[in-house]
Amino acid sequence: MKMDQEKSIRAGLIIIGDEILSGRTQDANLSYLANWLNEQGVVLAETRVIPDQEDVIVATVNEMRATFDYVFTTGGIGPTHDDITAKALARAFGVPLTVHPEAKALLVAYYGEEGVTEARLKMATMPEGTRLVPNRVSGAPGFRYENVFVLAGIPGVMQAMLEALRDEVKGTRPVISGAITVFVAESAISEMLAEIQKLAPEVSIGSYPFYRKGQGGACLVVRSRDAVAVENTLDAIRQALGAMGLDWQEGEPRFPGEESDPES
Amino acid sequence: MKMDQEKSIRAGLIIIGDEILSGRTQDANLSYLANWLNEQGVVLAETRVIPDQEDVIVATVNEMRATFDYVFTTGGIGPTHDDITAKALARAFGVPLTVHPEAKALLVAYYGEEGVTEARLKMATMPEGTRLVPNRVSGAPGFRYENVFVLAGIPGVMQAMLEALRDEVKGTRPVISGAITVFVAESAISEMLAEIQKLAPEVSIGSYPFYRKGQGGACLVVRSRDAVAVENTLDAIRQALGAMGLDWQEGEPRFPGEESDPES
Repeated sequence: MKMDQEKSIRAGLIIIGDEILSGRTQDANLSYLANWLNEQGVVLAETRVIPDQEDVIVATVNEMRATFDYVFTTGGIGPTHDDITAKALARAFGVPLTVHPEAKALLVAYYGEEGVTEARLKMATMPEGTRLVPNRVSGAPGFRYENVFVLAGIPGVMQAMLEALRDEVKGTRPVISGAITVFVAESAISEMLAEIQKLAPEVSIGSYPFYRKGQGGACLVVRSRDAVAVENTLDAIRQALGAMGLDWQEGEPRFPGEESDPES
Repeated sequence: MKMDQEKSIRAGLIIIGDEILSGRTQDANLSYLANWLNEQGVVLAETRVIPDQEDVIVATVNEMRATFDYVFTTGGIGPTHDDITAKALARAFGVPLTVHPEAKALLVAYYGEEGVTEARLKMATMPEGTRLVPNRVSGAPGFRYENVFVLAGIPGVMQAMLEALRDEVKGTRPVISGAITVFVAESAISEMLAEIQKLAPEVSIGSYPFYRKGQGGACLVVRSRDAVAVENTLDAIRQALGAMGLDWQEGEPRFPGEESDPES
């Protein structure tokens, strides 16, 4: 991406979950995390969805933590037998798996002394040397080890954990975006867009086709850390559309949802 | 996954799209493809969401096509400058990028001779030696090269392309699943589930917590290629729940959507 000439801070996301790969559950965490990271000035560079298999988790975490500035995992930190994230991560980090005293205290505060059964204690069992990520929704915390953040899979809990990380995950200037919607086939404007992209390497221009209720078109999205460059590029697109005699709308297409398009 | 002792046919999915990684668009193809593959008897083993960057596409495709029986890509095959999938794949396969005569003929049939502009011709420009994947929704086809299937990103088009691949993508017996919903915290049943899982290595038991409108619980999902094993395991769970004095419901939880859970 040309727009990333300013050194990007990049993150990888690992979604651990058979339930996503089997199609049973629709993931909701990717887009939430992507937007949150963008606010923090961090680029989500890659996401992997992997099964609940220890070897795969170990290999994926080790590859991604060596590649990206931050790595986030979601899922697999509950009390049941299929929650194997903490165990896999201890192996990935090469440290023992132990009961984290502070995490146990949080569980006791939440469930009461009697309530911290052996099953629940699993939620305080973590790789040695982790720091906790608070969870104000439910008792069990997430944790951080070096550049890896281990979060819950349930969207409400993951979101609460991210809220607690606002000051801990820091990037550069956030990416700004602006959009223009046109109601012509992408191919009619592809040459113009390619020209403008060539002249403005500091922005990234995306063209996202849609087709709905008989109306086809494309949403043109300009993204950059440089707000002035975004505005200038949008202006150049508006002028070019005007010169071509094409109408446009500011922003995203107005109807909800997107359907199949005549061109993709 | 213990249930995969019968040799699995495994697929990888590569979602190519800055618009997904930026959080602008919510992916809808993963869960659709996962369910489709399951009907075909193929396991979706991993999904990667990567940016519109040629080097990343090349590396990811080459890694995954060496690892999995089938690889599917979605996105980036339209007519605009940000559609770079075909070019990247030609590099990954080490073959030239050329106009596919049959694909061009399809575009001419769809748009008319005049309508096949230079921009649209890009949609017929593919790695040499590919076979087309028909697209009955719009003119531009997808393509197959060895074990890699290159599909559109727009859900309606991707789904139509998959329909055309029913006889081409073949696996083993499809995975069968059954579900039971309980309204207790996961930790109350985790030991019982772990026991049953230990006795039935041919199935995979997942526990998926939910919390909604003050009602918390877990959906217990049993999956296997062996329908009898699924039914026997569900029976064992029903009996164990009965012995523990707990109520259950057949199937998934009845209310729509899922929210944050007290335990995850």
